Amino acid sequence: MDRPVDINCDMGESFGPWKMGRDAEIMPFITAANIACGFHAGDPLVMAQTITLAQRHGVAVGAHPGYRDLHGFGRRPMDCSEEEVYGDVLYQLGAIDAFCRAQGVRLRHVKPHGALYNVAARDERTARGIVRAIRAFDPDLILYALPGGQLAREGEKSGLRVAYEVFADRNYNPDGTLVSRRLGDAFVHDPEQAAERVLRMVTEGKVRAVDGSDVPVRADTVCIHGDGPMAVEIARAVRQRLEAAGLTVAPLGGGAGV
Amino acid sequence: MDRPVDINCDMGESFGPWKMGRDAEIMPFITAANIACGFHAGDPLVMAQTITLAQRHGVAVGAHPGYRDLHGFGRRPMDCSEEEVYGDVLYQLGAIDAFCRAQGVRLRHVKPHGALYNVAARDERTARGIVRAIRAFDPDLILYALPGGQLAREGEKSGLRVAYEVFADRNYNPDGTLVSRRLGDAFVHDPEQAAERVLRMVTEGKVRAVDGSDVPVRADTVCIHGDGPMAVEIARAVRQRLEAAGLTVAPLGGGAGV
Amino acid sequence: MDRPVDINCDMGESFGPWKMGRDAEIMPFITAANIACGFHAGDPLVMAQTITLAQRHGVAVGAHPGYRDLHGFGRRPMDCSEEEVYGDVLYQLGAIDAFCRAQGVRLRHVKPHGALYNVAARDERTARGIVRAIRAFDPDLILYALPGGQLAREGEKSGLRVAYEVFADRNYNPDGTLVSRRLGDAFVHDPEQAAERVLRMVTEGKVRAVDGSDVPVRADTVCIHGDGPMAVEIARAVRQRLEAAGLTVAPLGGGAGV
Amino acid sequence: MDRPVDINCDMGESFGPWKMGRDAEIMPFITAANIACGFHAGDPLVMAQTITLAQRHGVAVGAHPGYRDLHGFGRRPMDCSEEEVYGDVLYQLGAIDAFCRAQGVRLRHVKPHGALYNVAARDERTARGIVRAIRAFDPDLILYALPGGQLAREGEKSGLRVAYEVFADRNYNPDGTLVSRRLGDAFVHDPEQAAERVLRMVTEGKVRAVDGSDVPVRADTVCIHGDGPMAVEIARAVRQRLEAAGLTVAPLGGGAGV
Repeated sequence: MDRPVDINCDMGESFGPWKMGRDAEIMPFITAANIACGFHAGDPLVMAQTITLAQRHGVAVGAHPGYRDLHGFGRRPMDCSEEEVYGDVLYQLGAIDAFCRAQGVRLRHVKPHGALYNVAARDERTARGIVRAIRAFDPDLILYALPGGQLAREGEKSGLRVAYEVFADRNYNPDGTLVSRRLGDAFVHDPEQAAERVLRMVTEGKVRAVDGSDVPVRADTVCIHGDGPMAVEIARAVRQRLEAAGLTVAPLGGGAGV
Repeated sequence: MDRPVDINCDMGESFGPWKMGRDAEIMPFITAANIACGFHAGDPLVMAQTITLAQRHGVAVGAHPGYRDLHGFGRRPMDCSEEEVYGDVLYQLGAIDAFCRAQGVRLRHVKPHGALYNVAARDERTARGIVRAIRAFDPDLILYALPGGQLAREGEKSGLRVAYEVFADRNYNPDGTLVSRRLGDAFVHDPEQAAERVLRMVTEGKVRAVDGSDVPVRADTVCIHGDGPMAVEIARAVRQRLEAAGLTVAPLGGGAGV
Repeated sequence: MDRPVDINCDMGESFGPWKMGRDAEIMPFITAANIACGFHAGDPLVMAQTITLAQRHGVAVGAHPGYRDLHGFGRRPMDCSEEEVYGDVLYQLGAIDAFCRAQGVRLRHVKPHGALYNVAARDERTARGIVRAIRAFDPDLILYALPGGQLAREGEKSGLRVAYEVFADRNYNPDGTLVSRRLGDAFVHDPEQAAERVLRMVTEGKVRAVDGSDVPVRADTVCIHGDGPMAVEIARAVRQRLEAAGLTVAPLGGGAGV
Repeated sequence: MDRPVDINCDMGESFGPWKMGRDAEIMPFITAANIACGFHAGDPLVMAQTITLAQRHGVAVGAHPGYRDLHGFGRRPMDCSEEEVYGDVLYQLGAIDAFCRAQGVRLRHVKPHGALYNVAARDERTARGIVRAIRAFDPDLILYALPGGQLAREGEKSGLRVAYEVFADRNYNPDGTLVSRRLGDAFVHDPEQAAERVLRMVTEGKVRAVDGSDVPVRADTVCIHGDGPMAVEIARAVRQRLEAAGLTVAPLGGGAGV
C-alpha cells in the first residue's frame, strides 16, 4: 500500500464577528481543507486567513460551496433548479479561487457542503449542476463525494476525478450508508477507536457496521468533522495512527503550492 | 484622432425575480459592460446572461463590484476598512470571472459601483483596497475611475492602466466635477445634446460647464447611465454621432473574445 | 346570498431599488391586500407605502410571510423545522404589524407566500409552525388557506378563523386541485371568462374543471395573482361582474380602519 | 438615594449556528436586556430564547435594533436617510415585540446598537428616524441614549422618557466623552475597579477621568458590555457592590411581566 492517505476537514466557517471551529488546531493534522465560500458560511477575510493557514501547513485548498442559506448554515435542503445550483456553485468557485490566486495557491478540490452534499447524492439535477459548474471552471479539480451517490456518478461520467470519502467519526449501516444523525449511535466519539477504524478502512477497505458485519469501503479520502467536541483529538489520533502504521499522509493531488 | 472611443454602461443589475435596466436595448450601442457581481445587484444567472449578451455584441466585459448592501443598491457610503474593501472586491472579481471563464470570455476592466466609486474617489483607504484587489487578481485589468480622484491616483501609482471617464448625461461644474444629483441641472436629458457634448469631449477634450465656461476633460471612456428614462436614446445618439464623425467606437483593450 | 365577497391579491413585493407589480392599479378592485413582510420580498418603506395605499382604498391589510429566501422569492421549498417556521412567521407578523400600528391600521389576516403556502398545504410540521405563530401573535387574525390542505385543517383545529380561497385565474382539476403551473392550461387569461367563473364559484359554489365536470368549491375569498400580464384587467372584470350581479364586495372582517 | 439602579447589557447576539456572548451567565446580574432584533445579529429563535432567559431572571426586555449589516455586525456607519432609519428601526421593534407578545412579556426600552447608536449621537437625521419609529410604535418605551448626544435631545424633545447611560467598563475623557476604543486605556478591565467606579457614578454622580479630574455624570442606567473577556466578572462585581452599598438594583420601569 503506497498510495498516500488524504485527510479532509471543513474549514473557514466563521462569518463576520462570529467564530466557528478550531481551524488552527486541526489544520496541522489534515491534508485537505474544504473552505467555505460565503454562502452558508465564510467571508472574504475568513477565506483569506484560512488559505494562509492551509498554506503554512502544506494543506491542499478546496472549495466548500453551499446553499445560499446563511441563517440555516446550508443544512436545509432547498428545491433549486439545475441552473440555480450551477450558478451558485460556479459563483462560489470563482470567489474562493480569487483568494487562492491572490495568495499564490492552486485550488485543488471541491466538496459541497451540508444539504447540498446530501441532496446531490440522491438528486440528479443537483448533481449535474455541481458537476457542470466544476467542469466549466476547472476540469482538473477533484470532486469529493459520497461513495455510491448520484454526485459521484455524474462526476465520473463527466470525466472529473472523484475522491470517495470515508468518515472517521461516523458509524456505518450494513449497506454502507451512514447511520442517521438522529440515532444515538451515529457518531464515533472515541479518538482511538476512530483512528483504528480509519486505519482498517484505508488498509483493508473494510469497516465494521453497527450490526457487527464488515462493509467494504473505498477510502480515497478520510473526512473528519471539525464541529464535533472531539474534533481535534480525533484528527490527531487518526493522523498519528496512519503514520505509525507507515502510511504516507499527503494531499491527493500534491501540496498547497502552485 | 485615431484612438478608438469606448462607451461603457452599467449592466446586469437585476436580482432574482426583479428586473432592472434595458440591457438588451442598450448593449448594441456600447463597447464596455460593467456587470454587477452580486453584492449590490446581480446574481449568478443574471451575470451569465449579461456576459452572453455582451459576447453577442462584441462588448468588453468588466466587473462592477459594489458594497455588500443589496437593499440600498450599494448607494449608501459604508465605513469599511481597507481590508474589508479589499476582500469584498476580490471576492466579486473572482465571482464574475468564473462566469467569464465558463463562457470563454476574458474579463477586461473594473468599475466600482455607486457609493464605492464615489467614496474611492476621495478616500485613500477605500481606493487602496480596490487597487490592491485588482492587482492581486489580474494586473492587466483596466481600472475605470473618476478623473482627478483618489482611486485614479492609487491605480496609476500601482501601475494599473486607468481609464478616465467622461459622462454623456451629466452636467459639469467649472472645476471639472459633476453637478450634484440633488440640483435641478445635474442631468443632460436630450439625446442629441448629449451626443454633441460627447463628440466635443472626445475630439477637443473640452466640455461646456454650467456657467458657460469650457472645462478640459480627458475622455478615455464615455459613461452612459443605464437607468435614466432616455438611456437607450442617449446611447444610440452618442454612438451614431461618434461614428458619423468618422471615429472608431471600440473597446479599450480589444473585443470580448479570449 | 348576502355574505360579502372578498377579493385578495399579493401586494408590496418590491424590494429596495427594484419594483414589482402594479399595486396602485390593482388596489381599487380588491378588498384584501396580502403584504410581503421582508423575507421573500418587501422592505420597510415598501410595507409602509403599501399599507397607505390599502388604507386609501378601504382594503383590509394582511401579512404575506414567506421563506427567508429573497433571491428565490420564497418560491423554493426549504426543509425548515416547525420551530424555524414558527419563528420566521412570528417575526414577519410583528414586523408588518409595527407599520400597521404606526399608521393606525389593524392587521386582519395572514396568507403565507409561495412555497411556504404550498408546503404548508401538505406538511403538518410547516402548517403547525404557521398556525402557532398566528395564534401566539393574535388569534383574531384570519388565516387564508388552500381548501382541503393541511394548513386549513391545522388552522381550524386550533380555533383560527380560516378563509378558503378560490382562484380567479387558475384552472381546476376534477378533484378540486389546481392544474399545475407547468401545464399549458394552468391559467385563465381572459378577464371576462375569469369573472364569469368567479361569479359561479361565489353564487353556486361550483367551478367547471378542465375535463368539463363541475367541481364543488367553497369561496370565502377570491385570489387574484398580481403578477400575471392581465392582472389589472382580471381584477377589474371580477369586481365589476360581482357588483353587477348585486353582490357586496367587501373585506371579510370589515374595512381597513382600527 | 432611593432610586433603583438599572444595569443593562446587550444580549441575544448569536445568529443561526453561530454563538456569541455569555448571556446565561450575565443575565442573573443585570436588570435590562437589550436584545438584538435580526439586522446586525439575532434571529427569531435566539430572540425567543433570550426573552425566556430574561423572564426567568426578572430582567426587563428591550429592543436593540441595528443597521441592516449582518456581516459588519452593525458596527460600520452607513449613510442612511431618516426614512430608512425610521423604517429599519420600526421593523425591528415590531419583530422583537412579536416574541414578547407570544411570551407574555412587555417590551420596555430601546437601545440602538453599535454604529447606529454612535451615529445617532451626532446626526440629527438618524436620531429623528429612531425617535419617530419609537413614538410611532409605543411612546411608553424608554430610550437608552448617550448623555449629551443628539439622540437624547431628540428623544426628550419628542416627549420620550430617556435613560442616560454610564459605562462600567470604559474610561472617560475630562469632557465626559468616552476614551476612543483605539486608545490603550479605553477599557476598565478590573472588575473591582469597575464596580467601585459605578458605585461612585451612581451615588455621587461623578467619575474619575483619565487625566485624574472628576467628571459629572448622570447615571440612569449602567451599561456593561457583554463581549469583553471579563464581562461576567464585571457584571457580578458591579451588582454585588451596588447591593452591598444598600442600593436597590431593579429595572427602570418595573420587571419583565406584563
